[in-house]
Amino acid sequence: MRKIIPAFLTYGAVVALFAMQASSTAEVRYAQDGAFLFPQGYRTWTFVTSGLGMSYGPSGASDAQGNLKFDNVFASPTAYRGFQQNGVWPDKTVLVLELRGSSTNVSINRSGYVQTGVVDVEVHVKDAARGGWAFYAFRPGQTQAKMIPRSATCYSCHEQHGSVDTTFVQFYPTLSGVANR
Amino acid sequence: MRKIIPAFLTYGAVVALFAMQASSTAEVRYAQDGAFLFPQGYRTWTFVTSGLGMSYGPSGASDAQGNLKFDNVFASPTAYRGFQQNGVWPDKTVLVLELRGSSTNVSINRSGYVQTGVVDVEVHVKDAARGGWAFYAFRPGQTQAKMIPRSATCYSCHEQHGSVDTTFVQFYPTLSGVANR
Repeated sequence: MRKIIPAFLTYGAVVALFAMQASSTAEVRYAQDGAFLFPQGYRTWTFVTSGLGMSYGPSGASDAQGNLKFDNVFASPTAYRGFQQNGVWPDKTVLVLELRGSSTNVSINRSGYVQTGVVDVEVHVKDAARGGWAFYAFRPGQTQAKMIPRSATCYSCHEQHGSVDTTFVQFYPTLSGVANR
Repeated sequence: MRKIIPAFLTYGAVVALFAMQASSTAEVRYAQDGAFLFPQGYRTWTFVTSGLGMSYGPSGASDAQGNLKFDNVFASPTAYRGFQQNGVWPDKTVLVLELRGSSTNVSINRSGYVQTGVVDVEVHVKDAARGGWAFYAFRPGQTQAKMIPRSATCYSCHEQHGSVDTTFVQFYPTLSGVANR
């Protein structure tokens, strides 16, 4: 027995499937007052790179215990694909900088550094409808954050030193070649 | 005018969509002679953690230029989700260890370490049909690799020191809590 299903139901199911996929990557979400909502799923976004103790000054960046901090960078998947294809961050790009502490002599590890708990999560969002790139910073557990004012030095430093569109692509080994082409 | 589409076509379209999703994550692929095929898409898999200079001995692991090596760990997405849900790596899990060189004083970075080029890619695959966990190592550009023999010390070390199922989950900050529960 062959069942017949109305076309609109068919298309509805297909559209719903695509929407499910899209919602997992569309991560630009604001509260009514304009605060940016913490991007819950960022750990499964596309990994960009990781650094240890990166600092613009002579001392390495460290956590409250004096251990060097790791910085893991993630990009929203559609933004990463867009950059790979065109060398440009598309509108609604979200870059996440996750800062973690470090430790050594963990388990059988006798030298070098392993990652520990989250210290801070910082977000860089490109949103033309809200004036372009903006920064937000989240302490652990914080679910939304107001925009860091555009007078802050993070903006001017990124503008001066970011190799592409106020972002530090020069530190992203899988993307810096794309930008150079 | 309302169109009618046979149900099997509908189901076909939906199944095809799911298959497209599945093929992007099913990354256990072998050559006819049993060599493992390089997992081309691993950089968009789920990031697990990153370490610097990790070594079981007193000197940190370094590259040919004497710089400490970064190790980025990625899991096939279905394996990562499976582990998050059950605390167990499902069959066909692929874990990728990407080793990269490091550098400092790059651009405006004055201290700490940034990642540079790929040194080596090592793969750990759980495949019950082929006797369980197996290791493969790829030099840059290598497209397939024969299994490292099970007599190698990597197997015995992982068996003795891996906290979960011969894997070093103790170094994976987002998964070690799952394993403890």
